[in-house]
Amino acid sequence: MVNVVTERKAEESHRQDSANLLIFITLLTLTILTIWLFKHRRFRFLHETGLAMIYGLFVGIILRFGVHLPQDLSDVTLTCAVNSSPTTILVNVSGRFYEYSLKGEVQDSKGHDVPNAEMLRKVTFDPEVFFNILLPPIIFHAGYSLKRRHFFRNLGSILSYAFVGTLTTCFVTGLVMYGCVVFMKVIGQLGGDFFFTDCLFFGAIVSATDPVTVLAIFNELKVDVDLYALMFGESVLNDAVAIVLSSSIVAYQPEGDNRHTFDGSALLKSLGVFLGFFSGSFAMGAATGVMTALVTKFTKLRDFPLLETALFFLMSWSTFLLAEACGFTGVVAVLFCGITQAHYTYNNLSAESKSRTKQLFELLNFLAENFIFSYMGLTFFSFQHHVFNPLFIIGAFLAIFLGRAANIYPLSFLLNLGRKNKIASNFQHVMMFSGLRGAMTFALSIRDTATYARQMMFSTTLLIVFFTVLVCGGGTTPVLSLMQIRVGVDTDQDNSVTAPDGMTQRSTKHESAWPFRLWYTFDHNYLKPFLTHSGPPLTSTLPACCGPIARCLTSTQAYENAGQLNDEDTELILNDGGGLMYSDMMVSTDAHGMPTPSTSQAGLYSLAGTSDDPLDRELVFGGTRLVLPTDEPPDPLTSFPPPPPSPPLLDPLRHRV
Amino acid sequence: MVNVVTERKAEESHRQDSANLLIFITLLTLTILTIWLFKHRRFRFLHETGLAMIYGLFVGIILRFGVHLPQDLSDVTLTCAVNSSPTTILVNVSGRFYEYSLKGEVQDSKGHDVPNAEMLRKVTFDPEVFFNILLPPIIFHAGYSLKRRHFFRNLGSILSYAFVGTLTTCFVTGLVMYGCVVFMKVIGQLGGDFFFTDCLFFGAIVSATDPVTVLAIFNELKVDVDLYALMFGESVLNDAVAIVLSSSIVAYQPEGDNRHTFDGSALLKSLGVFLGFFSGSFAMGAATGVMTALVTKFTKLRDFPLLETALFFLMSWSTFLLAEACGFTGVVAVLFCGITQAHYTYNNLSAESKSRTKQLFELLNFLAENFIFSYMGLTFFSFQHHVFNPLFIIGAFLAIFLGRAANIYPLSFLLNLGRKNKIASNFQHVMMFSGLRGAMTFALSIRDTATYARQMMFSTTLLIVFFTVLVCGGGTTPVLSLMQIRVGVDTDQDNSVTAPDGMTQRSTKHESAWPFRLWYTFDHNYLKPFLTHSGPPLTSTLPACCGPIARCLTSTQAYENAGQLNDEDTELILNDGGGLMYSDMMVSTDAHGMPTPSTSQAGLYSLAGTSDDPLDRELVFGGTRLVLPTDEPPDPLTSFPPPPPSPPLLDPLRHRV
Repeated sequence: MVNVVTERKAEESHRQDSANLLIFITLLTLTILTIWLFKHRRFRFLHETGLAMIYGLFVGIILRFGVHLPQDLSDVTLTCAVNSSPTTILVNVSGRFYEYSLKGEVQDSKGHDVPNAEMLRKVTFDPEVFFNILLPPIIFHAGYSLKRRHFFRNLGSILSYAFVGTLTTCFVTGLVMYGCVVFMKVIGQLGGDFFFTDCLFFGAIVSATDPVTVLAIFNELKVDVDLYALMFGESVLNDAVAIVLSSSIVAYQPEGDNRHTFDGSALLKSLGVFLGFFSGSFAMGAATGVMTALVTKFTKLRDFPLLETALFFLMSWSTFLLAEACGFTGVVAVLFCGITQAHYTYNNLSAESKSRTKQLFELLNFLAENFIFSYMGLTFFSFQHHVFNPLFIIGAFLAIFLGRAANIYPLSFLLNLGRKNKIASNFQHVMMFSGLRGAMTFALSIRDTATYARQMMFSTTLLIVFFTVLVCGGGTTPVLSLMQIRVGVDTDQDNSVTAPDGMTQRSTKHESAWPFRLWYTFDHNYLKPFLTHSGPPLTSTLPACCGPIARCLTSTQAYENAGQLNDEDTELILNDGGGLMYSDMMVSTDAHGMPTPSTSQAGLYSLAGTSDDPLDRELVFGGTRLVLPTDEPPDPLTSFPPPPPSPPLLDPLRHRV
Repeated sequence: MVNVVTERKAEESHRQDSANLLIFITLLTLTILTIWLFKHRRFRFLHETGLAMIYGLFVGIILRFGVHLPQDLSDVTLTCAVNSSPTTILVNVSGRFYEYSLKGEVQDSKGHDVPNAEMLRKVTFDPEVFFNILLPPIIFHAGYSLKRRHFFRNLGSILSYAFVGTLTTCFVTGLVMYGCVVFMKVIGQLGGDFFFTDCLFFGAIVSATDPVTVLAIFNELKVDVDLYALMFGESVLNDAVAIVLSSSIVAYQPEGDNRHTFDGSALLKSLGVFLGFFSGSFAMGAATGVMTALVTKFTKLRDFPLLETALFFLMSWSTFLLAEACGFTGVVAVLFCGITQAHYTYNNLSAESKSRTKQLFELLNFLAENFIFSYMGLTFFSFQHHVFNPLFIIGAFLAIFLGRAANIYPLSFLLNLGRKNKIASNFQHVMMFSGLRGAMTFALSIRDTATYARQMMFSTTLLIVFFTVLVCGGGTTPVLSLMQIRVGVDTDQDNSVTAPDGMTQRSTKHESAWPFRLWYTFDHNYLKPFLTHSGPPLTSTLPACCGPIARCLTSTQAYENAGQLNDEDTELILNDGGGLMYSDMMVSTDAHGMPTPSTSQAGLYSLAGTSDDPLDRELVFGGTRLVLPTDEPPDPLTSFPPPPPSPPLLDPLRHRV
């Protein structure tokens, strides 16, 4: 009989779980339908994530105030003589042993005043769900869809913003918050402990800007590619920095809550943790990416797209598990795995797998993202330990504003000293305005809500996310037009409209800083040929003594390609500087997906012929191949529409808002 | 300090979980690479699922005998005065409350002789994972990819095999097993209780045949379409029957283990449970399918394939959750949802969403299937309560053989009395031989391994699965050629090669039984126009009094299509009988995905002109549109290659083995 009761209860619990998940699925379905309605009616003010959040808020209100379930009083409190809380305990109930697993510590288990706490507790997910299930596909997708060309061209600036900038934001925010907390303590507005490390932790979690909302708008409006690359690169990488940074700050105070003075060895340890976590996760991510590239290169898996896609998916997932199993940060590893996969493996995939993997991760990203945002809305009402402190909230908003400003403006000034292609002040304002906080900030803040400080942080963070997503996200379009940012830019087109002399072709390469050029040469000569079918054969780039190895590692396709560079990234990185002359002609596809170049072939070939540098000539031929990827050039009389009446050069400003 | 220790333990446990999952991911990756190697070398003897199983076996051996981890002695046994085992308990450890959730009853918690039990226990998944995560995508994919044309033509036979046949198998197997168990009891070979209901339960779980392995081979070899439809339809539906049947049998003995005599009311209750579960799950599945069809019909979601795919995925998933939340069987609901989605919603999707949804569920199915099979291999060594009883095993093999025979041969005989297109005896032998047991049988048997009877069942079931997948699966190709089954059949081609008079065109419709014709007419006149854009407008099929409603529900596209039937299924169901004359000409696409009909248009149109029945003429036009989905007929002189030199009629036997 006991057994039957237990089984029935387990069944009941399973049904309840299904019903809860169903709430979220319904929410997401509603969100999708409303998004469609918005898109259909060209209503751009509210992004889908904002919408998901608002729906979540409504459901949260209903669950909190509308539904009244009979309280489940089956909780049994056992008072035990054990002096630790093991992960598993066996309970001996009249001769039968039952296994129980630890779910976590419960605060003030009885005596809360919320009427249907049980119901609310049921719709609460384990915070680790975010880190282990929902964030990885989002972050991987971000890495996998980095616009490589402009990303690599702005690599230095992006890394500066992501590392130096995020650290600056974190410390500035932390210091402002510390000032605020000290002030609150003085006037007696603080209801619990709040230490300096808590302030720094808060700084770390709110310094992760979200790539989702703003970039969706950027993408839709086809905003200036350099601005896009800077924003996207920064927000993707600073997620990684923020997550490692917050772990390091937690590592600073491992001894419990009793010591909160400055400690040199703890600081060193934190620094070590930061560097170790970051480099370890980076290495894991890159390693599995490289392994996938090698496997897809040296097998003929491309004949079976299903197998290839499955392998790609599993290897990418294994990055996460490997990093977590080794004690590194899975989410960070997944990001670098995504970048590596996009840079190398993607070139080895069959055309079908390319679209399959893209679509798969696009879908996973979409679902996970909207799930997180609707959960965010819901948890605003279902979370039972909110601590809303007006002073703290005002301080926090001030702090994130100052923190963001301390990141963008000084760094941009410093970067502009070295950049030929300056970051204009209107770009800086947009970057300042568009620093939304989203999924990563939420996941980091909900991870631990045990103490008073963390609860106050969580509540404040939720408000910050709501505000930035709804107000900053919604205001992006007006701000873009206010700041006169170019929109409607073809992503494969360059923005150097200011130098119409046709000689900027080689400038991108030369204008790049030397570390980038060094990396580019290494990547192009050794890594690309080693990991993909493109680039020059290794036999020609490696020294003669490595001949046998080079022959083994070079695929037959690489030899075939030896004369002609069909390395997409090369074109993307090096050739874009010369995009002016035929920028509007490059890769504009008609409705049937067929390329429709709008100038004749002769012009291109003659342009290639006038170039002195043989590499550049190759590159222009590369560009030609990009425009017309057919082996026999089709007859322009029958296949292509006539060139458009107005050549793009006549009106360089027509893309401005 | 206590807190820190707990956290560290949770972290350790998380790392261990990641490592375990990594084992499976590595296994799957290895499987994929080996499958590729097999496919690459055209080695067809072992299917991927068999391979996954064998790899799982190896890893199981290594974990069991190779790895020796220090025993984790953190289990604490509490002896409590509570007289039930609640799902959640709070443990008061020196003032702090920890929440523990019930994992299940533990048998002989101490004193087992396996050296690294902890390690093995760690790689053991909760059996509910199979029902809630892994089976749904497999079953949905099966429903979604049912070959509709031949499925509906053989619907009566398929339903007979699935319902009457599976019930027969279950009872015959159960009776044989009961005889075996009684014999074992007499000679003292039985180490525990084994009741008649246990025998029936065993019969139910081993009566679920697996559609995976054999049909993969059938698909690859392009086996006769009717045989394919019979096998696929039966094995997909009998999964549903078996799962509901096993629940009903469990419901027969709810009072505990003390009464095992015949009980009329319990039998009635079982019957009620069976009918209730089945019809409820069917209704849920069909309802969400219909809802998805309506949503995709009445919104213009097709302009945004990502949204459409996400909606499709979420709605299909919600079927499962809805059914589980209402206490029905989610897996069964998902099957019928899949069939409904394929029959209605699929027609409303945009071309991109069609391929996206297909590819997505193909991938999910592939991953889940291989995961289950590798887990099966692993659990053979990691499961710690195996009861291998030679007599029982021999009895079980005999019982499944007899049970399968009692399903196929008598039913085929009865069905052949009514069928015009007889089920040949070689088809029957193949169906008899190819009744593999797979994922569903495994999931059902691992769900409950608490008692001696269930443990013996589980061990025996594992052996049956191994044997059938490896031996029967591997032997399918030889058996097909031994039985002289036609292979290399175009799936869009009919098998009625024996009536080359060109007048079989209408025979398929007339040869179908009246319930099918009734359903077909209803579906074609009312459901199709209501749920999709195809079929005749509702305004013309509904009575005049329903005019306003009909106008609301009919899409503009349906009016446009009114003259011409572009209902794919119609063609598939009704037109296939006439496929003989131009069967090899239909829908053969060239490498660029463009249709290349191999006879001139004139022949088709004249064929259409000679038909008396206006419906049939429409249908032939429908076939024409299928061949050439362009609005302006292209010039045959420039667009199409010349007709092939040998018409298919000259050599009707060339497709035979």
